[in-house]
Amino acid sequence: MSTKKELRIGLVGTGFMGRTHSNGYNRVPNFFPDLEYTPVLKAVCSRNATKVQAFADQWGYESIETDWKALIARDDIDAVDICTPNDSHAEIAIAAAKAGKMILCEKPLARTVAEAQQMVDAVNEAGVANTVWYNYRRIPAVSLAKQIIDSGKLGKIFHYRANFLQDWTISADVPQGGAGTWRMDVEAAGSGVTGDLLAHCIDTAMWLNGAIKDVSAVTETFVKERFHQGTGKVEPVGIDDACIFHCHFENGSLGLFESTRYARGHKALYTLEINGENASIRWDLHDLNRLEYFDHSDEGIVRGWRSIHVTDGDQPYMDKWWVPGLGIGYEHSFIHQVADFLKSLETGAPCSPNFQDALETQKVCEAVLESAASRSWKDTGVEEFTQ
Amino acid sequence: MSTKKELRIGLVGTGFMGRTHSNGYNRVPNFFPDLEYTPVLKAVCSRNATKVQAFADQWGYESIETDWKALIARDDIDAVDICTPNDSHAEIAIAAAKAGKMILCEKPLARTVAEAQQMVDAVNEAGVANTVWYNYRRIPAVSLAKQIIDSGKLGKIFHYRANFLQDWTISADVPQGGAGTWRMDVEAAGSGVTGDLLAHCIDTAMWLNGAIKDVSAVTETFVKERFHQGTGKVEPVGIDDACIFHCHFENGSLGLFESTRYARGHKALYTLEINGENASIRWDLHDLNRLEYFDHSDEGIVRGWRSIHVTDGDQPYMDKWWVPGLGIGYEHSFIHQVADFLKSLETGAPCSPNFQDALETQKVCEAVLESAASRSWKDTGVEEFTQ
Amino acid sequence: MSTKKELRIGLVGTGFMGRTHSNGYNRVPNFFPDLEYTPVLKAVCSRNATKVQAFADQWGYESIETDWKALIARDDIDAVDICTPNDSHAEIAIAAAKAGKMILCEKPLARTVAEAQQMVDAVNEAGVANTVWYNYRRIPAVSLAKQIIDSGKLGKIFHYRANFLQDWTISADVPQGGAGTWRMDVEAAGSGVTGDLLAHCIDTAMWLNGAIKDVSAVTETFVKERFHQGTGKVEPVGIDDACIFHCHFENGSLGLFESTRYARGHKALYTLEINGENASIRWDLHDLNRLEYFDHSDEGIVRGWRSIHVTDGDQPYMDKWWVPGLGIGYEHSFIHQVADFLKSLETGAPCSPNFQDALETQKVCEAVLESAASRSWKDTGVEEFTQ
Amino acid sequence: MSTKKELRIGLVGTGFMGRTHSNGYNRVPNFFPDLEYTPVLKAVCSRNATKVQAFADQWGYESIETDWKALIARDDIDAVDICTPNDSHAEIAIAAAKAGKMILCEKPLARTVAEAQQMVDAVNEAGVANTVWYNYRRIPAVSLAKQIIDSGKLGKIFHYRANFLQDWTISADVPQGGAGTWRMDVEAAGSGVTGDLLAHCIDTAMWLNGAIKDVSAVTETFVKERFHQGTGKVEPVGIDDACIFHCHFENGSLGLFESTRYARGHKALYTLEINGENASIRWDLHDLNRLEYFDHSDEGIVRGWRSIHVTDGDQPYMDKWWVPGLGIGYEHSFIHQVADFLKSLETGAPCSPNFQDALETQKVCEAVLESAASRSWKDTGVEEFTQ
Repeated sequence: MSTKKELRIGLVGTGFMGRTHSNGYNRVPNFFPDLEYTPVLKAVCSRNATKVQAFADQWGYESIETDWKALIARDDIDAVDICTPNDSHAEIAIAAAKAGKMILCEKPLARTVAEAQQMVDAVNEAGVANTVWYNYRRIPAVSLAKQIIDSGKLGKIFHYRANFLQDWTISADVPQGGAGTWRMDVEAAGSGVTGDLLAHCIDTAMWLNGAIKDVSAVTETFVKERFHQGTGKVEPVGIDDACIFHCHFENGSLGLFESTRYARGHKALYTLEINGENASIRWDLHDLNRLEYFDHSDEGIVRGWRSIHVTDGDQPYMDKWWVPGLGIGYEHSFIHQVADFLKSLETGAPCSPNFQDALETQKVCEAVLESAASRSWKDTGVEEFTQ
Repeated sequence: MSTKKELRIGLVGTGFMGRTHSNGYNRVPNFFPDLEYTPVLKAVCSRNATKVQAFADQWGYESIETDWKALIARDDIDAVDICTPNDSHAEIAIAAAKAGKMILCEKPLARTVAEAQQMVDAVNEAGVANTVWYNYRRIPAVSLAKQIIDSGKLGKIFHYRANFLQDWTISADVPQGGAGTWRMDVEAAGSGVTGDLLAHCIDTAMWLNGAIKDVSAVTETFVKERFHQGTGKVEPVGIDDACIFHCHFENGSLGLFESTRYARGHKALYTLEINGENASIRWDLHDLNRLEYFDHSDEGIVRGWRSIHVTDGDQPYMDKWWVPGLGIGYEHSFIHQVADFLKSLETGAPCSPNFQDALETQKVCEAVLESAASRSWKDTGVEEFTQ
Repeated sequence: MSTKKELRIGLVGTGFMGRTHSNGYNRVPNFFPDLEYTPVLKAVCSRNATKVQAFADQWGYESIETDWKALIARDDIDAVDICTPNDSHAEIAIAAAKAGKMILCEKPLARTVAEAQQMVDAVNEAGVANTVWYNYRRIPAVSLAKQIIDSGKLGKIFHYRANFLQDWTISADVPQGGAGTWRMDVEAAGSGVTGDLLAHCIDTAMWLNGAIKDVSAVTETFVKERFHQGTGKVEPVGIDDACIFHCHFENGSLGLFESTRYARGHKALYTLEINGENASIRWDLHDLNRLEYFDHSDEGIVRGWRSIHVTDGDQPYMDKWWVPGLGIGYEHSFIHQVADFLKSLETGAPCSPNFQDALETQKVCEAVLESAASRSWKDTGVEEFTQ
Repeated sequence: MSTKKELRIGLVGTGFMGRTHSNGYNRVPNFFPDLEYTPVLKAVCSRNATKVQAFADQWGYESIETDWKALIARDDIDAVDICTPNDSHAEIAIAAAKAGKMILCEKPLARTVAEAQQMVDAVNEAGVANTVWYNYRRIPAVSLAKQIIDSGKLGKIFHYRANFLQDWTISADVPQGGAGTWRMDVEAAGSGVTGDLLAHCIDTAMWLNGAIKDVSAVTETFVKERFHQGTGKVEPVGIDDACIFHCHFENGSLGLFESTRYARGHKALYTLEINGENASIRWDLHDLNRLEYFDHSDEGIVRGWRSIHVTDGDQPYMDKWWVPGLGIGYEHSFIHQVADFLKSLETGAPCSPNFQDALETQKVCEAVLESAASRSWKDTGVEEFTQ
């Protein structure tokens, strides 16, 4: 491994996403041995020194920091990975860009379009490589969907629909704010399901089906007040518990999106479907190795939805793993994103989605929230979406 | 059978729905032998005497008519069944009511709320029994969903979603107007998927989850011109090829509806789902004997969606059919509706849905179309929906 | 309908199968109007005059008999339909044949090969049309499987497997003998699941995949004693509660069959699968409108099991029913069998399966039971199976 | 991590299983940080020095060996992991035991009962910890099945069935012998699907349902000759391409097993089902995060198979991974096995399955092959199976 170029990583944040990213860095050398670059886990940063040291021990980081500014200031770090709550993405990313660091930022890029635009400006000015962890693109079945669509098999597109349904906040006892539940706090998260879940759906949708032009949305907050772990008091809930919107895509197709944390029985049901003139595709995160595909050109009497178990070596990423029939899991999407980022360093091509792409997704999220607030259609301002 | 009271039927229309209703009348004596009333197929009416005679021979009608006014004028007919295209429902129904006939009208009740309101007024004034063939309620799995919801198992409702996806009009060669394709002609049909398919979804939804208060919709006509079999020319298409809307129910839950005839791969995919605080339910017309049910009160480690094969004798209607595991089909929903109508004659209770209920569904359809046209939210005006 | 030739039916037996057959006769004129023959329900026979009159009223039989010999003696009956318990099939059928009646016999043809052989001899000698109600062949999805196999799409066959799993006799309180539970009484039934359920699987298997040459079986009787409704005492149970066997087909493929009434959770799970060099097929009675088909010649990255919803007009029998997506049920297999029998009267071709075919199935059943009893392989003696 | 006790691993074999095991060792410190022991990858051994060095670089082994005897002779190795073809398991394991090494041996333990017995004797004499990589037990859904069964929810067991269907050897062009295809060579593998695939099914079955007493089997070799990569000539094929058997379990239930590499359309379809008096369980490797469970004690009208997405923190192993709804993959079963082996070093309890357990599985495999060869029932000689 001595001939590998190193990508020295500094990770900020040690929560759920800190774990998924760290696993990505650790696995890539085992499963993508032919990459020119290899990640080196230089440092991890979080406020609590004891906890961050335990995290470093567990995941193999060489050192710790308790102040992200100190981490950014280090000379031995090439890339900063931002896994903190959404309200600190902009500040850290802009500082990291100014320090000339590459940036891998957890999604959503920011809480608002304004923040996101500043972040895009910062990385463009600094000329640093950047990407955002919209990981679901890199589930092999979803990547295969992209490949099928790009091959033209679907023809003219009529419909795109996606939903992301959960049920973990139905209890009024779930608090807002604090370490495990900052996603319930509008100040930290920026929004509820829109930024957390629909942002994933929107990213995949625009990657697969192009720009979303305008939206008409409705949101709902079913539980109006929750205990806040930060203030220690019961506070109004500022996030959207559920969000539904329909939209027009640039290509003339209709879109339909829904997300909620109140769909009893669904743990993380991210499904997507696209209907074209000649063929259609469906996918479901709960059975993530499978892609469903309908091809109208099949002979009529034996025509039906095909259930494709995406575990063959000629399907995206799967030559790196096991043998046909043996599935992989959620975490592998992050491993693939690390591998693709490293590959982009070799080739010099941007690693999609980059900050600019994520800004476009942010525009849709913001238009959705504005539409819901004003009970009216909103243009998204997304010009095009090609990556 | 000599002790049975007779319900003497006059059927108007010999198309697809003429067949489903006629089958309903023919099957009831075999499978519901304990009913007090029995249907007698007195007459069937359609313009073409040769064709209507063939229909009468095939289905066992005693006589034919070629003018519906003649049929209504007959003394030996108790009930008029209207299976004509939507543009004649109002005229026939109002005349039938004035003649003191009971009416079984195919859905949607009418093309517009105004027409539907006149029909309601007519049956109310005449005091005649009336029902509308929103048949999907009487699929045993859907009836079981109603029973579960009424039992209170779901708790507070958060979400209701339904779609009805088809793909039979993708080809631009499908004509509009004429016998087989009047559903493509806005003059005959009143609307496209909204009245044809979403009306079913809306009827079931309000039956299961109560009134829909307001809606925000989008429609699309993908193929702008089609050959018209009536005029013999290519004409603009006036119907909606696809329609999506979200809405608020009176009970505070959010609704999401979609219908299209451009969803490649779906023949008649009517699915519905309702998410409550404690339990959820799903159903799919393509596998119509099955109901999926999730009960959060199940022990956590063995909790999951239950796939209920609704073919046991203690499940709705199934004591009339075969043994557990042996499914029934689409047509049985009409047989059940006939049986329930006959039962309502015994009990004197209205047979749901009646014209009033169907008027409420019409209000939602009209609000949906107006919302789409005006790109704004519309109140439906539905006060309550209890049947 | 006056120009139709009549097939005057005399039905013996008014149990579950009496209902399915009667429904078949009643429905055919509605859905197969172009047939030359039409069934006429002349008489139904059962011992209890009150009950048989009620049955006649419900199903439209013109008259009743309480002695099957009287029914056979009638001049106004062309065909005798035998729906009695298995122990009377041979006697009735042989008498009917001698009386020159056509025979439609419920499966299994008999309790033993010896009985079945006498029945075959009788119909051959009399030269009367005959068929056995192995109805599952005529589920459209199963008929489509036959069509696909006959087209040669599968190539060389390696494997055939089928099972028929139920759970209704797990309770030791289920009695044997008597009206509803004669299937539990070895004297009346001849065997347990082997003749009741596996006989269906074997018939379909030999129809689809040719003759079964030899078998190795195991049977089990889990509950050793049950109350007998005939004797009024607890008696030893003589039937097989479960039966498993593997076998060789004439074409070199391996077969695997299982049936039981002790598979908790399965109501009537009849599944079959056939694996060929180039393609495979699966079917499941619990979702009977669907056929699964895998075609290895599909492009690799989009290859998968196709879920075919067998409801299109160009699929077997489905031009007689509704529109794509709208399923039919269990009972339709009997309607199709009636239609095919009537058609065979027009064409003069035998209506498969006839008594000879059912005798071959009987040979396999008997070899299975002998194999289990002797714990050794048994040749079936089936020479060929072409219908 | 300095306080961890080290388990110094020497791996023999760098094929497919070498990768799965190496990944297991690498992942455990990240996901099971609380274990007392940590694996240290001391050395990996294979004949080709270049290739083994590349493997060592990829997976982080500190050193290489090209002779397994040298590896066993090293003082700095605590445990030998055997991933070579089956024909060398016995020799290496016995030598390792004599050298006092712990042993983790890939399945099947050996080619024959005789070999396996010697291996058991060797580890017992040496008193070294030992385990065999029957990894499927440690798929969380399968572990949950064990937990449910042990809780007594199923009651008396009637049926157990399992199959393992593949399709990768249908082409006659697949060779036997050599690096990638030693599984096709009876000399190297000992048997075909019986030792490769059914051994897994048998291990899981006896773990879940106790000892298998006697078996009746059939095997088939569809392609009789294949090119041999070792001899360079077309040679007779000695392995079983397909194997089916039925059996009695010690607890009185019937078993049914099938495996083949000629089931077109199935990549690695390992399914299992167990039917008890009160409940039943099913599992399918192609959708490995899911367990299906039927509980007869559920209220009748809402009773059905539950589809359990086994991704909650209170389900086996899942507290180590992500959040509900986010699945894991095939490889995780090996990570869990490493973790459990390390845990067993802490507790002193044996790590199931150990060599003794795997010997019992070997006895069933051998009885199966003997039964097929002699066309007769064979006793397995398995006394009990408790781990």
